[in-house]
Amino acid sequence: MRAILAENVRVFRKENGLSQEELADRCELHRTYIGSVEREERNVSLSTLEVLSQALGISVAELLTPRAEHDPKDPH
Amino acid sequence: MRAILAENVRVFRKENGLSQEELADRCELHRTYIGSVEREERNVSLSTLEVLSQALGISVAELLTPRAEHDPKDPH
Repeated sequence: MRAILAENVRVFRKENGLSQEELADRCELHRTYIGSVEREERNVSLSTLEVLSQALGISVAELLTPRAEHDPKDPH
Repeated sequence: MRAILAENVRVFRKENGLSQEELADRCELHRTYIGSVEREERNVSLSTLEVLSQALGISVAELLTPRAEHDPKDPH
């Protein structure tokens, strides 16, 4: 699951045109935190998953859905 | 999100015919832990979400999808 989360954070962050630091600012997380999530180093809590998904404009379920299962007709 | 998780754990647990204690056993969690999740008391971690979803035979994304969005044609 960490790998799925890491990939989705990176992909949706880039779709939103955000750097790791900009996403961290939106989430009120430390500027190094997003990098550690994208390196699969974090056992993220549900409340942080919620903050991340809101900042990326998607649902928590979408944030945790493997990329291959995302509907190719709908990038979100 | 805690409310969504709480409802889904309860609904999928009952669909699997499991008591809170039986689900806890399957997850190797303390017997009181499932009750606290269903009372929305826990800020569950991603690793625990993974263990819970595996024990319930669903994906983490399904575990965090609001009930109203679950496909009524497919109870899972």
